[in-house]
Amino acid sequence: MSKAPLSILKIGGKIIEQPEVLEQVLYSFSQLKGPKILVHGGGKRASQLGQQLGIAAQMIEGRRVTDAATLEIVTMVYAGLYNKKLVALLQAKNCNAIGMSGADGNIIQAHKRQGWEHDYGFAGDIDKINTTAIQRLLEAAFTPVFCAITHDKKGQLLNTNADTIAAQVAQAMASFYEVSLYLCLDFNGVLLDPKDATSIIAHLNIEAYQRYQQKGIISGGMIPKLDNAFDTIKAGVSSVKICGPDSIMTGGTILS
Amino acid sequence: MSKAPLSILKIGGKIIEQPEVLEQVLYSFSQLKGPKILVHGGGKRASQLGQQLGIAAQMIEGRRVTDAATLEIVTMVYAGLYNKKLVALLQAKNCNAIGMSGADGNIIQAHKRQGWEHDYGFAGDIDKINTTAIQRLLEAAFTPVFCAITHDKKGQLLNTNADTIAAQVAQAMASFYEVSLYLCLDFNGVLLDPKDATSIIAHLNIEAYQRYQQKGIISGGMIPKLDNAFDTIKAGVSSVKICGPDSIMTGGTILS
Repeated sequence: MSKAPLSILKIGGKIIEQPEVLEQVLYSFSQLKGPKILVHGGGKRASQLGQQLGIAAQMIEGRRVTDAATLEIVTMVYAGLYNKKLVALLQAKNCNAIGMSGADGNIIQAHKRQGWEHDYGFAGDIDKINTTAIQRLLEAAFTPVFCAITHDKKGQLLNTNADTIAAQVAQAMASFYEVSLYLCLDFNGVLLDPKDATSIIAHLNIEAYQRYQQKGIISGGMIPKLDNAFDTIKAGVSSVKICGPDSIMTGGTILS
Repeated sequence: MSKAPLSILKIGGKIIEQPEVLEQVLYSFSQLKGPKILVHGGGKRASQLGQQLGIAAQMIEGRRVTDAATLEIVTMVYAGLYNKKLVALLQAKNCNAIGMSGADGNIIQAHKRQGWEHDYGFAGDIDKINTTAIQRLLEAAFTPVFCAITHDKKGQLLNTNADTIAAQVAQAMASFYEVSLYLCLDFNGVLLDPKDATSIIAHLNIEAYQRYQQKGIISGGMIPKLDNAFDTIKAGVSSVKICGPDSIMTGGTILS
């Protein structure tokens, strides 16, 4: 039996901070056919607000520590300012967006990160995705817009990475839908030559990916992104597209 | 044909800022049977945040002017910090809360206040309540939690009074449900003697209200609140209860 399609687009906070780019991305998203979900990251505004309020960002080995004051700030910026801005802009495009954190409808339950060498504060690692609740929203013709805030079902909000949320929601929904995951980055796809923006690899499977890696054609920051993307496919997601603001609808690199 | 019951509780921001009182109020709310909606106000935190960021609150004749910077602050505090806090606390009580602004699901469409003597900035006067969307959420077993942010369906968020939202949602939903509106204030009901907290008037109809007013027993700030409440009843809401944190479930003053 063929499953119905579901598109999930992940965008970073940097996109939200550039009005014209955001406009273009949200237009493309609103044009995707069938049920869809938007997942958005944070961006610099939370750090800026922290600085303005005299709350210094604490980092341990490149990871942000979410203390109580920082959790308040990210809740304000991600779940408040950014999430509602995106929803209002999508509604203006007749896309029936409904903004959510993982606490809303108990959609994403997580636990405070434990057993690591350092204490990362209110950082949440995901326990489960409430696919029933997401399906109910999609069936009621809503387009969920998720920010990177989750909860522990005991009253505590938690800060969770938006890429992880997008991947885990995609994997969980793959039991019920044919899921296409779109990862919108700064550039328009995976490049054969980093100096040539037009050298986009149109299709990439795991074998070709490994060959390109061995030859050093794909390297650096693309490796963890593509590793995660191929893991998502292994976990049942039908396709992952690496794209930029210009190539959500056509172009980009399709992984399968 | 008898309609199904629907409870709508309005709480002010002051309650959210007192953890023990909030706990009690949310417990009572979670115990209300049948479909229900929570509407919450803002409180001092938005003003405090504005002060910390050097954005002075502008007031014209007792009304706050919502300039662009203030709109960002109230969106962060009301739709982010407070809304998600309430949702997480309700979820911990197994109440399936889903937090929303009026932009989400296009639930509350408003327009920027116009034609007044002064410019109040991004203050929104309500045009329509999307009862279909609210019904869909209730039927999908969600408990909507509304903050005092609306939108104009053209991409602009707006700041709207929480009492007005509660009253207008109650009136709109009265076409489909037998609506009980609970207005949770600082005190436990309408008092016969303001100095005696136990002198609560259990039931109040419009005739008795007018008599009490003529005799000067009900006066001051209670008058606009009760006028609005009786207007809501005239518009089809089945009952309005004036209550405090202790008297949501039993006690308070029932208007009819």
